[in-house]
Amino acid sequence: MLECQGMKSVAIFVAPGFEEIEFAAPLDILRRLNVRAVTVGVDGNEIAGAHGLIVKTDSSLDAFKLDDFDGIILPGGGGAWVLRDNPQILDIIKAACSSGKLVAAICAAPMALSRAGVAKGKNITAYPMQEVYDELKDSTITEMPVTLDGNLLTAYGPGAAMAFGYAIGEYLGLASEVVGLKKGMMYTE
Amino acid sequence: MLECQGMKSVAIFVAPGFEEIEFAAPLDILRRLNVRAVTVGVDGNEIAGAHGLIVKTDSSLDAFKLDDFDGIILPGGGGAWVLRDNPQILDIIKAACSSGKLVAAICAAPMALSRAGVAKGKNITAYPMQEVYDELKDSTITEMPVTLDGNLLTAYGPGAAMAFGYAIGEYLGLASEVVGLKKGMMYTE
Repeated sequence: MLECQGMKSVAIFVAPGFEEIEFAAPLDILRRLNVRAVTVGVDGNEIAGAHGLIVKTDSSLDAFKLDDFDGIILPGGGGAWVLRDNPQILDIIKAACSSGKLVAAICAAPMALSRAGVAKGKNITAYPMQEVYDELKDSTITEMPVTLDGNLLTAYGPGAAMAFGYAIGEYLGLASEVVGLKKGMMYTE
Repeated sequence: MLECQGMKSVAIFVAPGFEEIEFAAPLDILRRLNVRAVTVGVDGNEIAGAHGLIVKTDSSLDAFKLDDFDGIILPGGGGAWVLRDNPQILDIIKAACSSGKLVAAICAAPMALSRAGVAKGKNITAYPMQEVYDELKDSTITEMPVTLDGNLLTAYGPGAAMAFGYAIGEYLGLASEVVGLKKGMMYTE
Protein backbone atom coordinates (compact mmCIF):
# COMPACT_ATOMS: atom_id res chain seq x y z
CA MET A 1 0.00 0.00 0.00
CA LEU A 2 1.45 3.39 -0.94
CA GLU A 3 1.55 6.06 1.69
CA CYS A 4 0.59 9.47 0.40
CA GLN A 5 2.56 12.51 1.48
CA GLY A 6 1.31 13.60 4.90
CA MET A 7 -1.21 10.80 5.15
CA LYS A 8 -1.60 9.54 8.70
CA SER A 9 -1.23 5.86 9.32
CA VAL A 10 -2.50 3.51 12.04
CA ALA A 11 -2.32 -0.23 12.64
CA ILE A 12 -5.34 -2.07 14.00
CA PHE A 13 -4.39 -5.32 15.73
CA VAL A 14 -6.89 -8.05 14.99
CA ALA A 15 -6.69 -10.94 17.45
CA PRO A 16 -8.93 -14.03 17.50
CA GLY A 17 -12.13 -13.05 19.34
CA PHE A 18 -11.94 -9.35 18.41
CA GLU A 19 -15.17 -7.47 19.08
CA GLU A 20 -16.64 -6.87 15.63
CA ILE A 21 -18.11 -3.37 16.16
CA GLU A 22 -15.03 -2.18 18.06
CA PHE A 23 -12.93 -3.31 15.12
CA ALA A 24 -15.14 -2.21 12.23
CA ALA A 25 -16.16 1.24 13.50
CA PRO A 26 -12.65 2.75 13.87
CA LEU A 27 -11.54 1.07 10.63
CA ASP A 28 -14.49 2.46 8.68
CA ILE A 29 -14.24 5.94 10.21
CA LEU A 30 -10.47 6.26 9.78
CA ARG A 31 -10.53 5.11 6.17
CA ARG A 32 -13.31 7.62 5.47
CA LEU A 33 -10.95 10.24 6.94
CA ASN A 34 -8.24 9.11 4.48
CA VAL A 35 -6.13 7.70 7.28
CA ARG A 36 -4.12 4.69 6.12
CA ALA A 37 -5.65 2.11 8.51
CA VAL A 38 -3.91 -1.24 8.19
CA THR A 39 -5.39 -4.36 9.76
CA VAL A 40 -2.74 -6.59 11.32
CA GLY A 41 -3.68 -10.19 12.08
CA VAL A 42 -2.22 -11.36 15.38
CA ASP A 43 -2.60 -15.03 14.44
CA GLY A 44 -2.25 -15.27 10.66
CA ASN A 45 -4.31 -13.10 8.35
CA GLU A 46 -7.74 -14.68 8.56
CA ILE A 47 -9.22 -14.01 11.98
CA ALA A 48 -12.59 -14.89 13.54
CA GLY A 49 -14.25 -12.32 15.76
CA ALA A 50 -16.05 -12.71 19.08
CA HIS A 51 -19.32 -13.38 17.22
CA GLY A 52 -17.95 -15.49 14.43
CA LEU A 53 -17.27 -12.91 11.74
CA ILE A 54 -14.20 -13.94 9.75
CA VAL A 55 -12.13 -11.10 8.29
CA LYS A 56 -9.05 -11.11 6.12
CA THR A 57 -6.39 -8.75 7.40
CA ASP A 58 -4.05 -6.62 5.32
CA SER A 59 -0.96 -8.02 7.01
CA SER A 60 0.13 -10.06 9.98
CA LEU A 61 2.07 -9.44 13.18
CA ASP A 62 5.21 -11.16 11.86
CA ALA A 63 5.66 -8.41 9.27
CA PHE A 64 4.73 -5.50 11.55
CA LYS A 65 7.03 -2.45 11.65
CA LEU A 66 6.08 0.25 14.11
CA ASP A 67 8.06 2.86 12.16
CA ASP A 68 5.43 2.70 9.43
CA PHE A 69 2.68 3.99 11.73
CA ASP A 70 1.57 7.06 13.68
CA GLY A 71 -0.40 4.96 16.11
CA ILE A 72 -1.80 1.58 17.07
CA ILE A 73 -5.35 0.51 17.87
CA LEU A 74 -6.38 -2.41 20.09
CA PRO A 75 -10.02 -3.60 19.78
CA GLY A 76 -11.70 -5.41 22.68
CA GLY A 77 -13.74 -8.57 22.94
CA GLY A 78 -12.15 -11.92 23.76
CA GLY A 79 -9.29 -10.76 21.56
CA ALA A 80 -8.31 -8.28 24.30
CA TRP A 81 -7.02 -11.19 26.41
CA VAL A 82 -5.01 -12.45 23.45
CA LEU A 83 -3.45 -9.00 23.03
CA ARG A 84 -2.79 -8.69 26.79
CA ASP A 85 -0.99 -12.04 26.85
CA ASN A 86 1.13 -11.55 23.71
CA PRO A 87 4.70 -10.39 24.56
CA GLN A 88 5.24 -9.01 21.05
CA ILE A 89 2.13 -6.81 21.36
CA LEU A 90 3.29 -5.59 24.78
CA ASP A 91 6.70 -4.68 23.32
CA ILE A 92 4.97 -2.78 20.51
CA ILE A 93 2.83 -0.87 23.02
CA LYS A 94 5.93 0.08 25.04
CA ALA A 95 7.81 1.16 21.93
CA ALA A 96 4.81 3.14 20.61
CA CYS A 97 4.47 4.95 23.94
CA SER A 98 8.13 5.75 24.27
CA SER A 99 8.19 7.23 20.78
CA GLY A 100 5.08 9.33 21.44
CA LYS A 101 2.81 7.52 18.99
CA LEU A 102 -0.92 7.18 19.63
CA VAL A 103 -1.90 4.07 21.59
CA ALA A 104 -5.67 3.52 21.47
CA ALA A 105 -7.53 0.69 23.23
CA ILE A 106 -11.21 -0.04 23.72
CA CYS A 107 -13.34 -2.17 26.06
CA ALA A 108 -11.17 -4.85 27.72
CA ALA A 109 -8.08 -3.99 25.63
CA PRO A 110 -6.79 -1.30 28.05
CA MET A 111 -5.66 -4.32 30.12
CA ALA A 112 -2.82 -4.64 27.62
CA LEU A 113 -1.71 -1.06 28.34
CA SER A 114 -1.46 -1.93 32.02
CA ARG A 115 0.48 -5.15 31.29
CA ALA A 116 2.85 -3.17 29.07
CA GLY A 117 3.46 -0.84 32.00
CA VAL A 118 2.30 2.34 30.27
CA ALA A 119 -1.01 2.94 32.08
CA LYS A 120 0.29 3.58 35.60
CA GLY A 121 -1.05 6.86 36.99
CA LYS A 122 -2.89 7.58 33.76
CA ASN A 123 -6.56 8.42 33.23
CA ILE A 124 -8.07 5.41 31.52
CA THR A 125 -11.54 4.21 30.65
CA ALA A 126 -12.34 0.55 30.08
CA TYR A 127 -15.14 -2.00 30.13
CA PRO A 128 -16.57 -2.09 33.66
CA MET A 129 -15.94 -5.69 34.64
CA GLN A 130 -13.96 -6.65 37.71
CA GLU A 131 -11.14 -8.45 35.92
CA VAL A 132 -10.52 -5.46 33.67
CA TYR A 133 -10.68 -2.92 36.50
CA ASP A 134 -8.35 -5.11 38.60
CA GLU A 135 -5.76 -5.04 35.82
CA LEU A 136 -6.02 -1.24 35.81
CA LYS A 137 -5.69 -0.79 39.57
CA ASP A 138 -2.70 1.55 39.16
CA SER A 139 -4.62 3.82 36.77
CA THR A 140 -7.42 6.30 37.43
CA ILE A 141 -10.55 4.85 35.81
CA THR A 142 -12.72 7.65 34.47
CA GLU A 143 -15.91 5.66 33.69
CA MET A 144 -16.31 7.94 30.64
CA PRO A 145 -17.11 6.64 27.11
CA VAL A 146 -13.77 7.94 25.77
CA THR A 147 -10.72 9.24 27.65
CA LEU A 148 -7.52 10.83 26.35
CA ASP A 149 -4.45 11.14 28.57
CA GLY A 150 -1.32 12.16 26.71
CA ASN A 151 -0.98 9.71 23.84
CA LEU A 152 -3.22 7.07 25.48
CA LEU A 153 -6.76 7.04 24.13
CA THR A 154 -9.25 4.59 25.65
CA ALA A 155 -12.96 3.82 25.29
CA TYR A 156 -15.29 1.66 27.37
CA GLY A 157 -17.24 -0.64 25.02
CA PRO A 158 -19.00 -1.26 21.69
CA GLY A 159 -21.49 1.55 22.33
CA ALA A 160 -18.53 3.97 22.29
CA ALA A 161 -16.82 2.44 19.24
CA MET A 162 -17.82 5.20 16.82
CA ALA A 163 -16.91 7.92 19.33
CA PHE A 164 -13.56 6.11 19.73
CA GLY A 165 -13.00 6.19 15.97
CA TYR A 166 -13.81 9.89 15.76
CA ALA A 167 -11.55 10.63 18.75
CA ILE A 168 -8.67 8.85 16.99
CA GLY A 169 -9.28 11.01 13.93
CA GLU A 170 -9.27 14.15 16.07
CA TYR A 171 -6.03 13.06 17.76
CA LEU A 172 -4.45 12.65 14.33
CA GLY A 173 -5.24 16.28 13.53
CA LEU A 174 -8.45 15.76 11.57
CA ALA A 175 -10.90 17.50 13.91
CA SER A 176 -12.61 19.57 11.22
CA GLU A 177 -12.93 16.54 8.92
CA VAL A 178 -14.48 14.63 11.84
CA VAL A 179 -17.20 17.27 12.23
CA GLY A 180 -18.25 16.79 8.61
CA LEU A 181 -17.90 13.03 8.76
CA LYS A 182 -20.18 12.69 11.80
CA LYS A 183 -22.87 14.55 9.86
CA GLY A 184 -22.26 12.43 6.75
CA MET A 185 -22.57 9.26 8.81
CA MET A 186 -25.77 10.44 10.52
CA TYR A 187 -23.97 10.23 13.84
CA THR A 188 -25.50 11.97 16.84
CA GLU A 189 -23.86 12.03 20.25
CA MET B 1 -25.58 -24.58 11.15
CA LEU B 2 -28.14 -26.18 13.47
CA GLU B 3 -31.18 -24.16 14.33
CA CYS B 4 -32.23 -24.47 17.95
CA GLN B 5 -35.88 -24.90 18.83
CA GLY B 6 -37.54 -21.50 18.82
CA MET B 7 -34.37 -19.68 17.79
CA LYS B 8 -35.03 -16.75 15.48
CA SER B 9 -33.16 -16.59 12.24
CA VAL B 10 -32.18 -13.78 9.87
CA ALA B 11 -30.14 -13.53 6.69
CA ILE B 12 -27.82 -10.58 6.15
CA PHE B 13 -27.11 -9.97 2.47
CA VAL B 14 -23.49 -8.97 1.94
CA ALA B 15 -22.92 -7.30 -1.43
CA PRO B 16 -19.64 -5.88 -2.73
CA GLY B 17 -19.29 -2.39 -1.24
CA PHE B 18 -21.35 -3.12 1.87
CA GLU B 19 -21.00 -0.44 4.55
CA GLU B 20 -18.86 -2.08 7.24
CA ILE B 21 -20.54 -0.63 10.36
CA GLU B 22 -24.04 -1.17 8.95
CA PHE B 23 -23.12 -4.79 8.36
CA ALA B 24 -21.14 -5.52 11.55
CA ALA B 25 -23.41 -3.80 14.08
CA PRO B 26 -26.63 -5.78 13.39
CA LEU B 27 -24.62 -9.01 13.00
CA ASP B 28 -22.85 -8.53 16.33
CA ILE B 29 -26.01 -7.43 18.17
CA LEU B 30 -28.22 -10.21 16.79
CA ARG B 31 -25.68 -12.94 17.54
CA ARG B 32 -25.37 -11.57 21.08
CA LEU B 33 -29.19 -11.96 21.29
CA ASN B 34 -28.84 -15.60 20.21
CA VAL B 35 -30.51 -14.90 16.90
CA ARG B 36 -29.15 -17.15 14.16
CA ALA B 37 -27.73 -14.45 11.89
CA VAL B 38 -26.42 -15.89 8.65
CA THR B 39 -24.27 -13.81 6.31
CA VAL B 40 -25.13 -14.42 2.67
CA GLY B 41 -22.61 -13.33 0.05
CA VAL B 42 -24.29 -11.79 -2.98
CA ASP B 43 -21.23 -12.37 -5.19
CA GLY B 44 -19.45 -15.45 -3.87
CA ASN B 45 -18.53 -15.80 -0.22
CA GLU B 46 -15.62 -13.45 0.14
CA ILE B 47 -16.79 -9.88 -0.13
CA ALA B 48 -15.01 -6.52 0.12
CA GLY B 49 -16.79 -3.69 1.90
CA ALA B 50 -17.07 -0.01 1.02
CA HIS B 51 -13.82 0.71 2.89
CA GLY B 52 -11.91 -2.38 1.85
CA LEU B 53 -12.70 -4.79 4.69
CA ILE B 54 -12.87 -8.32 3.30
CA VAL B 55 -15.22 -10.70 5.11
CA LYS B 56 -15.97 -14.36 4.56
CA THR B 57 -19.68 -15.06 4.49
CA ASP B 58 -21.45 -18.12 5.91
CA SER B 59 -23.18 -18.89 2.62
CA SER B 60 -23.91 -17.41 -0.74
CA LEU B 61 -26.97 -16.23 -2.63
CA ASP B 62 -27.07 -19.32 -4.86
CA ALA B 63 -27.88 -21.50 -1.85
CA PHE B 64 -30.33 -19.10 -0.21
CA LYS B 65 -33.71 -20.43 0.94
CA LEU B 66 -36.11 -17.87 2.36
CA ASP B 67 -38.02 -20.58 4.25
CA ASP B 68 -35.07 -20.94 6.61
CA PHE B 69 -35.39 -17.37 7.89
CA ASP B 70 -37.69 -15.08 9.88
CA GLY B 71 -36.31 -12.02 8.18
CA ILE B 72 -33.76 -10.46 5.87
CA ILE B 73 -31.36 -7.56 6.42
CA LEU B 74 -29.94 -5.28 3.74
CA PRO B 75 -26.88 -3.17 4.71
CA GLY B 76 -26.12 0.06 2.88
CA GLY B 77 -22.99 1.53 1.34
CA GLY B 78 -22.12 1.01 -2.32
CA GLY B 79 -23.53 -2.50 -1.86
CA ALA B 80 -27.02 -1.00 -1.66
CA TRP B 81 -26.90 -0.30 -5.41
CA VAL B 82 -25.83 -3.90 -6.04
CA LEU B 83 -28.78 -5.14 -3.98
CA ARG B 84 -31.17 -2.73 -5.71
CA ASP B 85 -30.09 -3.94 -9.13
CA ASN B 86 -30.13 -7.69 -8.41
CA PRO B 87 -33.39 -9.34 -9.62
CA GLN B 88 -32.92 -12.32 -7.29
CA ILE B 89 -32.66 -9.98 -4.27
CA LEU B 90 -35.79 -8.12 -5.41
CA ASP B 91 -37.68 -11.42 -5.72
CA ILE B 92 -36.55 -12.39 -2.20
CA ILE B 93 -37.74 -9.03 -0.83
CA LYS B 94 -41.16 -9.50 -2.50
CA ALA B 95 -41.48 -13.06 -1.21
CA ALA B 96 -40.36 -12.05 2.30
CA CYS B 97 -42.94 -9.26 2.38
CA SER B 98 -45.79 -11.39 1.09
CA SER B 99 -45.08 -14.02 3.72
CA GLY B 100 -44.95 -11.45 6.51
CA LYS B 101 -41.27 -11.84 7.31
CA LEU B 102 -39.17 -8.94 8.55
CA VAL B 103 -37.51 -6.89 5.81
CA ALA B 104 -34.88 -4.56 7.27
CA ALA B 105 -32.79 -2.08 5.25
CA ILE B 106 -30.39 0.69 6.25
CA CYS B 107 -28.89 3.80 4.63
CA ALA B 108 -29.23 3.57 0.82
CA ALA B 109 -30.58 0.00 0.91
CA PRO B 110 -34.26 1.04 1.26
CA MET B 111 -33.95 1.79 -2.49
CA ALA B 112 -34.22 -1.97 -2.99
CA LEU B 113 -37.55 -2.04 -1.13
CA SER B 114 -38.88 0.55 -3.55
CA ARG B 115 -37.56 -1.33 -6.59
CA ALA B 116 -39.19 -4.51 -5.26
CA GLY B 117 -42.48 -2.61 -5.07
CA VAL B 118 -43.03 -3.10 -1.34
CA ALA B 119 -42.36 0.45 -0.08
CA LYS B 120 -45.24 2.27 -1.79
CA GLY B 121 -47.27 4.28 0.73
CA LYS B 122 -45.08 3.06 3.59
CA ASN B 123 -43.22 5.06 6.23
CA ILE B 124 -39.55 4.68 5.42
CA THR B 125 -36.32 6.25 6.55
CA ALA B 126 -33.18 6.25 4.42
CA TYR B 127 -29.91 8.05 3.82
CA PRO B 128 -30.72 11.65 2.87
CA MET B 129 -29.24 11.88 -0.58
CA GLN B 130 -31.23 12.89 -3.61
CA GLU B 131 -30.85 9.65 -5.55
CA VAL B 132 -32.08 7.61 -2.58
CA TYR B 133 -34.99 9.92 -1.83
CA ASP B 134 -35.95 9.95 -5.54
CA GLU B 135 -36.18 6.15 -5.51
CA LEU B 136 -38.50 6.42 -2.49
CA LYS B 137 -40.82 9.06 -3.97
CA ASP B 138 -43.88 6.85 -3.44
CA SER B 139 -43.08 6.36 0.26
CA THR B 140 -43.35 8.75 3.20
CA ILE B 141 -39.81 9.53 4.31
CA THR B 142 -39.74 10.00 8.07
CA GLU B 143 -36.19 11.44 8.43
CA MET B 144 -35.96 9.44 11.70
CA PRO B 145 -32.95 7.27 12.65
CA VAL B 146 -35.10 4.11 12.62
CA THR B 147 -38.64 3.57 11.31
CA LEU B 148 -40.92 0.54 11.56
CA ASP B 149 -43.98 0.22 9.31
CA GLY B 150 -45.58 -3.20 9.39
CA ASN B 151 -42.80 -5.65 8.65
CA LEU B 152 -40.56 -3.02 7.02
CA LEU B 153 -37.83 -1.72 9.28
CA THR B 154 -35.51 0.99 7.96
CA ALA B 155 -32.65 3.10 9.31
CA TYR B 156 -30.87 6.13 7.90
CA GLY B 157 -27.11 5.58 8.12
CA PRO B 158 -24.07 4.19 9.95
CA GLY B 159 -24.75 6.36 13.01
CA ALA B 160 -28.04 4.47 13.42
CA ALA B 161 -26.57 1.01 12.80
CA MET B 162 -26.62 -0.10 16.43
CA ALA B 163 -30.14 1.27 16.94
CA PHE B 164 -31.11 -0.64 13.79
CA GLY B 165 -29.68 -3.87 15.23
CA TYR B 166 -31.52 -3.40 18.52
CA ALA B 167 -34.77 -2.61 16.69
CA ILE B 168 -34.45 -5.85 14.72
CA GLY B 169 -34.02 -7.72 18.00
CA GLU B 170 -37.12 -6.02 19.43
CA TYR B 171 -39.10 -6.88 16.30
CA LEU B 172 -38.11 -10.52 16.73
CA GLY B 173 -39.63 -10.54 20.22
CA LEU B 174 -36.47 -9.93 22.23
CA ALA B 175 -37.30 -6.51 23.70
CA SER B 176 -36.35 -7.38 27.27
CA GLU B 177 -33.09 -8.98 26.16
CA VAL B 178 -32.34 -5.82 24.16
CA VAL B 179 -32.65 -3.68 27.30
CA GLY B 180 -29.99 -5.76 29.04
CA LEU B 181 -27.80 -5.95 25.96
CA LYS B 182 -27.72 -2.18 25.46
CA LYS B 183 -26.43 -1.87 29.03
CA GLY B 184 -23.90 -4.66 28.48
CA MET B 185 -22.63 -2.97 25.32
CA MET B 186 -22.36 0.45 27.01
CA TYR B 187 -24.86 1.79 24.50
CA THR B 188 -26.56 5.08 25.24
CA GLU B 189 -29.21 6.59 23.02
